[in-house]
Amino acid sequence: MAQKPSIPKGTRDFSPAEVSKRNYIFDIVKKHFQTFGFQPIETPSFENSETLLGKYGDEGDRLIFKILNSGDFISKVDDVTYSSKRSSSLAPKITEKALRYDLTVPFARYVVMHQNDIDFPFKRYQIQAVWRADRPQKGRFREFYQCDADVVGATSLLQEVELIQLYDGVFTDLKLAGVTIKLNNRKILAGITEVIGAQNNLINFTVALDKLDKIGVAGVKNEMLEKGISQESIEKASPLFSLQGSSMEQLQILEKLLASSEVGSKGVEELKFIVASVEELGLQSARLTVDVTLARGLNYYTGAIFEVAAPAGVKMGSIGGGGRYDDLTGIFGLKNVSGVGISFGLDRIYLVLEELGLFPETIEQSLDVLCVNFGEQEALAALRLTTQLRAAGVRTDIYPSDAKMQKQMKYANSRNVPYVILIGAQELKDKTFVVKDMKKGEQNTYKIDQVKNFVETL
Amino acid sequence: MAQKPSIPKGTRDFSPAEVSKRNYIFDIVKKHFQTFGFQPIETPSFENSETLLGKYGDEGDRLIFKILNSGDFISKVDDVTYSSKRSSSLAPKITEKALRYDLTVPFARYVVMHQNDIDFPFKRYQIQAVWRADRPQKGRFREFYQCDADVVGATSLLQEVELIQLYDGVFTDLKLAGVTIKLNNRKILAGITEVIGAQNNLINFTVALDKLDKIGVAGVKNEMLEKGISQESIEKASPLFSLQGSSMEQLQILEKLLASSEVGSKGVEELKFIVASVEELGLQSARLTVDVTLARGLNYYTGAIFEVAAPAGVKMGSIGGGGRYDDLTGIFGLKNVSGVGISFGLDRIYLVLEELGLFPETIEQSLDVLCVNFGEQEALAALRLTTQLRAAGVRTDIYPSDAKMQKQMKYANSRNVPYVILIGAQELKDKTFVVKDMKKGEQNTYKIDQVKNFVETL
Repeated sequence: MAQKPSIPKGTRDFSPAEVSKRNYIFDIVKKHFQTFGFQPIETPSFENSETLLGKYGDEGDRLIFKILNSGDFISKVDDVTYSSKRSSSLAPKITEKALRYDLTVPFARYVVMHQNDIDFPFKRYQIQAVWRADRPQKGRFREFYQCDADVVGATSLLQEVELIQLYDGVFTDLKLAGVTIKLNNRKILAGITEVIGAQNNLINFTVALDKLDKIGVAGVKNEMLEKGISQESIEKASPLFSLQGSSMEQLQILEKLLASSEVGSKGVEELKFIVASVEELGLQSARLTVDVTLARGLNYYTGAIFEVAAPAGVKMGSIGGGGRYDDLTGIFGLKNVSGVGISFGLDRIYLVLEELGLFPETIEQSLDVLCVNFGEQEALAALRLTTQLRAAGVRTDIYPSDAKMQKQMKYANSRNVPYVILIGAQELKDKTFVVKDMKKGEQNTYKIDQVKNFVETL
Repeated sequence: MAQKPSIPKGTRDFSPAEVSKRNYIFDIVKKHFQTFGFQPIETPSFENSETLLGKYGDEGDRLIFKILNSGDFISKVDDVTYSSKRSSSLAPKITEKALRYDLTVPFARYVVMHQNDIDFPFKRYQIQAVWRADRPQKGRFREFYQCDADVVGATSLLQEVELIQLYDGVFTDLKLAGVTIKLNNRKILAGITEVIGAQNNLINFTVALDKLDKIGVAGVKNEMLEKGISQESIEKASPLFSLQGSSMEQLQILEKLLASSEVGSKGVEELKFIVASVEELGLQSARLTVDVTLARGLNYYTGAIFEVAAPAGVKMGSIGGGGRYDDLTGIFGLKNVSGVGISFGLDRIYLVLEELGLFPETIEQSLDVLCVNFGEQEALAALRLTTQLRAAGVRTDIYPSDAKMQKQMKYANSRNVPYVILIGAQELKDKTFVVKDMKKGEQNTYKIDQVKNFVETL
């Protein structure tokens, strides 16, 4: 009996309209990646297990999809392991490959493997699917795309400046005005740790500080105390509670606070260069702001950190993020390669554009012209016309059978076609075709040997 | 210790140049899919195992990559199965999902699942990766892309005519002149079976017939006898040995031969319509030819069959193929949906274009302009210029450090950049920039506020 088909939880089918909208975003992102000199690479969907395992922590390892070895996979399991009947012991014996979990580790592997063919600095972008065995929930999928741009082999802060410009360019082009690009520096966070003597409590400290707007200075201080940060440390950190004003003003406060910390001062200096350069060059529609509470990827990033927030009023987590890391490729044996990168959160950007109605109207229009089919002779004339229109790049179709006019027009409507062409017996005789403008309801007649005149009206 | 990285056998990394070349092919194929009214869909990389298993024969089932269940997968295996220690019994208990093996079965599953949202006839295209646990060898990979266009819900032969035009359009646009589109019909093969009384030997019959050019009539007859086809059958089939001349001429011979077979006559009639229509409309650079030895996918196709051969002189199997099938979606419970589709063999087309030098020269040029970096002040001026060039769509980069001129020019050469821009101390003072044309070796100086003048020369 035929089975009722379904797809695995956490995965999605994409309809034509959805693919078109996703491609609209991808195409704009790609265009900017390219004008900024980034080059595309692609890596395999599955990697050797040892390339991925151990790179994302214990939780990450659990979320990696493993591929069962082909053939008689059991024959390679030793008796002791088999009789243990433990999944964690058995898994490494019956799987050798695993699905990509992110684009960063495969990129590091790529750089190390191909280091002799790469001209550094290497600016690469990569837009591919990744897979995670996460519990599926609203907005969290087991298969989703990541969209990353990284520069490796360049320590210059010009890269950070360019990546901020790149964010601005993409979101401006997507007509998503008013995004906020938050900027911080891992070195500033390290500096604060040093200065206030709360080395072991950095995460609690930044989490609490992040609530300043909501719970006020007193609330933040309370939370810090509860989390075990000493009164003394909190007092030392008090300048952070009045961090206000422009990015430059905030940086001046931080400069004083962190004067005694070498690493902290370096972080402030870096951000001053980045902020000053961006202000000098100007942004089109995004806003750049220093945010000392931004703390993403603490173990991973070593310099500047970015995060992009959707425009005010849209409830959505970050729609992009990134930062500088000093030792991406070290895990694969290539030391001292500094990198900096950003990523775009496709699924969230999609939801934001949908919510704000920012997808162009024409995006769901996959056909420009539909020719009505009135029978074999008429259809052949229509096909001749169709051939010419397609050669001119006009997306044209001819209804495949001489179904009732009503049915054909219903199809035209459901495909959202702006023009319907009619070649009936009379037109065949007159060597003409009739174009019906579906929006205006107007009809125009053209000579069959003057297709060009119609194409020019499009 | 750091591991030396590698990738699983049968998989590939794609460098920037390779991705660009692949995208060049994809973009042209997509453009034609769209002008022919096809719409894109995408399906998940993995499907529920039961969606895929049993659809590709026993050999196919073995080649499907299965994904190990997450968590404590062993706990769901009953004791009897576990103690059997047989891979084939264990596999279905510890895997529920499998990687896509082709695009056809997921498409059938998609059509059935979304039948209420689809406007039939549904013309879809799909370009996604598929995975097969095949033994890797030259030109055969474990991960590769398929590139399919299908129409479902339309029985009209106009579809077949259009698909031939589509092949012609794509290969013409790829500058790959002289491909041969071979055409046959499953009904003709069935008719031959009937007429000569060799129902059980159709494959041996067509395989032998296919060698006519190489081994001559006597050789073909010998092979047929060896394969158990009777002398009587061979005599009846003798008109096939003199199948020559134009497609129409061949069809006339077949018409006579198959006059007593209803299904065979229907097949001839179908091909006559297709051939006549294509001749009437004309092809740009491809050649359409009836080939009665073409027998692909016998169990699958029910009407017309296509296969595209590379231009004479290029040693390469088929670079495309397809046909009509009458019951694609029946396996998932939706009966009587006729479909017809074609696919493009990306990897082989890539190799053919490479062999014939048909990729455009500019394809490996990922950057239009590189600005040399002479130090902090100069770099900021260069970045201002870069910002303007990028806004004008010019792919521009600035070297990230003030490395030695020689090193920067070496980088420009390796990236194959046509223009290098120089803003040194003198230019900064003069408010100018110098453009070096890397091909001609010429240099021109522009005013810094007249970037437009340079952009116009591009």
